Amino acid sequence: MLQKEKIDQAIQILNETNTDAWLLFARETSDINEPSWGLVAPAGVVWQSAILITRRGQKIAIVGKYDDAAYRASGLYDDVIAYTQGIGESLRTVLTELDPKSIGLNFSKSNTASDGLTYGMFLQLQDLLNDTPYPARFISADPVVSRLRGRKTKSEASRIRAAINTTMQIFADVTPRIRVGVSEREIADWMQARVAELNLGYAWDKSDNPIVNIGPNSFPGHTPPSALKVEPGHVVHIDFGVKREEYCSDIQRVWYVLRAGEARAPQSVQKAFDAVAQTIEEGAKILRPGIAGWQVDARARQVIIGAGFPEYQHALGHQLGRTAHDGSTLLGPRWERYGDTPLGIVEEGQVFTLELGAMTDAGFIGLEEDVMVTANGCEFLEEPQTRMWEIGA
Amino acid sequence: MLQKEKIDQAIQILNETNTDAWLLFARETSDINEPSWGLVAPAGVVWQSAILITRRGQKIAIVGKYDDAAYRASGLYDDVIAYTQGIGESLRTVLTELDPKSIGLNFSKSNTASDGLTYGMFLQLQDLLNDTPYPARFISADPVVSRLRGRKTKSEASRIRAAINTTMQIFADVTPRIRVGVSEREIADWMQARVAELNLGYAWDKSDNPIVNIGPNSFPGHTPPSALKVEPGHVVHIDFGVKREEYCSDIQRVWYVLRAGEARAPQSVQKAFDAVAQTIEEGAKILRPGIAGWQVDARARQVIIGAGFPEYQHALGHQLGRTAHDGSTLLGPRWERYGDTPLGIVEEGQVFTLELGAMTDAGFIGLEEDVMVTANGCEFLEEPQTRMWEIGA
Repeated sequence: MLQKEKIDQAIQILNETNTDAWLLFARETSDINEPSWGLVAPAGVVWQSAILITRRGQKIAIVGKYDDAAYRASGLYDDVIAYTQGIGESLRTVLTELDPKSIGLNFSKSNTASDGLTYGMFLQLQDLLNDTPYPARFISADPVVSRLRGRKTKSEASRIRAAINTTMQIFADVTPRIRVGVSEREIADWMQARVAELNLGYAWDKSDNPIVNIGPNSFPGHTPPSALKVEPGHVVHIDFGVKREEYCSDIQRVWYVLRAGEARAPQSVQKAFDAVAQTIEEGAKILRPGIAGWQVDARARQVIIGAGFPEYQHALGHQLGRTAHDGSTLLGPRWERYGDTPLGIVEEGQVFTLELGAMTDAGFIGLEEDVMVTANGCEFLEEPQTRMWEIGA
Repeated sequence: MLQKEKIDQAIQILNETNTDAWLLFARETSDINEPSWGLVAPAGVVWQSAILITRRGQKIAIVGKYDDAAYRASGLYDDVIAYTQGIGESLRTVLTELDPKSIGLNFSKSNTASDGLTYGMFLQLQDLLNDTPYPARFISADPVVSRLRGRKTKSEASRIRAAINTTMQIFADVTPRIRVGVSEREIADWMQARVAELNLGYAWDKSDNPIVNIGPNSFPGHTPPSALKVEPGHVVHIDFGVKREEYCSDIQRVWYVLRAGEARAPQSVQKAFDAVAQTIEEGAKILRPGIAGWQVDARARQVIIGAGFPEYQHALGHQLGRTAHDGSTLLGPRWERYGDTPLGIVEEGQVFTLELGAMTDAGFIGLEEDVMVTANGCEFLEEPQTRMWEIGA
């Protein structure tokens, strides 16, 4: 069971990071997602609920009555406490028994995936533990959550691979449907129908998943597909990711639609494709345990600039897992908006995207690959796109 | 457009509540939902983004590059500012220009729907506005958000009615499928297949939606349907809600499966049904603008106890809207876990559930109706269940 694997891993990481206990505190998780909840819990919750995991291996859940059955049935915890009127008393009792010297809470300025505690819930926790020593022992659990979320277990890795395989199959199936006269909207609708047929979810909002860009007048942002249609001489770009059993893929592919008489894409398009593909290759070459995220981005940035293209206005790669943007160590530049995530050190078992693009007068050339960090380097999780996919006129 | 209606309403409520400005601050909204975001924004965001609405009617969005196109296209804002490296400078500039004396942020101890600001984002906001007067002007936007979310506009009311109509149709369609030998899981699977066919979403987690309880051995909690099968003499209880165009329904219905020779449910079952239905009716009779939430609950609690049944271990009713549990004023008892939400005053245009149950030796009798508060009372949004639905043996 995935949650069992992750709880075992959490206990190990609490020891590594010298953290006595990790306290998750959430409510109404179907409205406000707590990104760590599903890693260590069998189901969502309605009322204020706490999960406590300690470095000594204790695992306790305190949930509202009606939510408790699924928690008991999971067998994940030493104890499941159900309350009716309020969580305060049980929480104080459990903390007093465990008496942790440091208590990691899920908040982080930089890392969304470690930032599931709302400000109101933080204030409530302080109220509930008023007159106890525990609020003074709160620390950010980001070092725990980042490691835990990054290091994929066997179950997680196999779910990501399954999501990626399905995505590649949908790319293969959509290729013959990219023809002159077909619109961005029609391509997206067809892909979304496949997602529904296969009973998959989306790696990000359905409104712009897939992102489809046809030709030079389509802007490659987070925007819904338009009515623009394929014409000969256009580049078609698709950015697409599915969610399958809670785990995501995130891949970009490009096609070139030949004009009458053309045997291949024009030189300017080919040059951009080669520069983008080479940048990804160079990034992958240096991605390995121990390197800082920003160093991988800096190398890639150097390659694309060296090839005569403008630098991309985003990070080279983000982690991939339960979400497309899975937080923590980022292969990105040290810009304000990224906080300290580019300073993170790459670890074995992490899954990253490698992605960038270049504009041409035929359209946007964007590629994105998913790679897993191995003991000495990284491994592509799908066949990377290394040549332009051409569509006959 | 719904967001236009809600922004206009927000400006009016800022004036009512004497709040200068409402500041929404979020990132990666597809991972951590900001419950207010969709009320006033046309799309989710990836990077830190701010929406500012003032009592004077100014509307400004600051979003990351690539997210901005949908914001501009919406026409909802006076200005859409796109940034590349960091949001700080734009945010400081805009706040300095507007110079609001009070700035409502989305945090609340009691009210999940007003608590979309994470603790990490709160800390980040303090950092970004360090050395400005603005952190000292932060207040909870809960009074604004609660009113805004509660008072349904025309578009919102019509979406809720559509969700409810679809739900009632699915209840009607599932009725002939409730037969001796059919399991909880089979009933749930059939209903979920209808949800997929109709391209609907779920009002709460799919894992326990619908909740199906067959007979006296099925516990009416937030648990997945089991393998228990319908037998003659069983009560069948279903709690089900869909999401359609972002708005929800939440309804409970009960059936009684006749034994050979029975013409109707036994006296003990009928007595419980009548007590539950009457409690809802009495609650609806006093639900009107101006009454406090806990007063409605107290009246209902008195009725069910008076009929000889134990009091229910939850609130009589919650608001319904973008989520099944829509936060703010609750028709509930003044228990710790409900914070100050039972103290809220009922307003016209709010939509509430009225729900409770009673256990019998044939199974759980639970009913839940959805009502809208009118100028003088409330209106049922569907035909309430006032008699047991009987299934021939």
